[in-house]
Amino acid sequence: LGELALQKGERVPVELLALTYGSLVRQVIADYESIEEVNKQLDLMGYNIGVRLADDFFAKSGVSDCRSFQDSAEIVAKVGFKMYLNVQASVDLWNADNTAYSILFDENPLAEFTELPEEYAQLSFSNLVCGVIRGALEMLLLVVKCEFVRSTLQGNEMNEIRISLVEMLRESAPEDDED
Amino acid sequence: LGELALQKGERVPVELLALTYGSLVRQVIADYESIEEVNKQLDLMGYNIGVRLADDFFAKSGVSDCRSFQDSAEIVAKVGFKMYLNVQASVDLWNADNTAYSILFDENPLAEFTELPEEYAQLSFSNLVCGVIRGALEMLLLVVKCEFVRSTLQGNEMNEIRISLVEMLRESAPEDDED
Repeated sequence: LGELALQKGERVPVELLALTYGSLVRQVIADYESIEEVNKQLDLMGYNIGVRLADDFFAKSGVSDCRSFQDSAEIVAKVGFKMYLNVQASVDLWNADNTAYSILFDENPLAEFTELPEEYAQLSFSNLVCGVIRGALEMLLLVVKCEFVRSTLQGNEMNEIRISLVEMLRESAPEDDED
Repeated sequence: LGELALQKGERVPVELLALTYGSLVRQVIADYESIEEVNKQLDLMGYNIGVRLADDFFAKSGVSDCRSFQDSAEIVAKVGFKMYLNVQASVDLWNADNTAYSILFDENPLAEFTELPEEYAQLSFSNLVCGVIRGALEMLLLVVKCEFVRSTLQGNEMNEIRISLVEMLRESAPEDDED
């Protein structure tokens, strides 16, 4: 599915996205007092993007529906990451009751031009990605918590985003009575 | 050349770039008092991106060199716009002494999700692009002035970026004595 989606729509070099995103992070850092606030703000910006990107995703990806939290894992990792960041990601580290999993990937193209100075050790530079996932999954009525737990930018061997289910929403006006 | 470059490197959907750029513009608007300052800041961010993107451009585009202002026009419009924004642009409206030209293009993918409210009529939303051009051309020792003079976002039929030569710099340590 991800491969198919790569052929649809117009695409631009990831370098331009990475440099534009770097400008955004610098601007947010200049505006907020604490790194914690910066991380929050990047997540919020991502959330708004994810909400808008959800339609684009379904239009291009060939994914028709996804209501279970378990299905969402493969769709986010295998289709979403491939489509939007050209990244091969995998799903792993499910918890015992299947309400949390991790998305693992080696290279983070958003951080291609970035090195974190020591004073920014707590910065979750690519936190926008967590927000995008959170926003897009909320369009599927899945409320999740989403955060980087490991990052190559912070010296880890790979990137790990942890996604935990908080709540499954119901459609406000169900059109379908099955089940 | 532009077409060839499209096959090199990793590419991401233009929608993600457009939404990320929209977040950046909103953040800059929140930070500066006047729209004039916002335009300036976007240009400056673009300049820094253009300076870094110049290497990427030469590595991928197959363009080997370009020292005349007149050559730069076709390279920016035909190769640069195609490579980085997937946009077909043309060069026109040269002035009499060949020191200024316009780049014309119909659709602006950066503005795909944007409508300008009336109070932002003076906002040059995509001014980052002018900065990128300015920064990249400066790497070619061409100092230019670059600005949007028409924009579809402001109700015009097409987008026009005007580029005027300010100065041609000399290499500080010329290795080649010809000419």
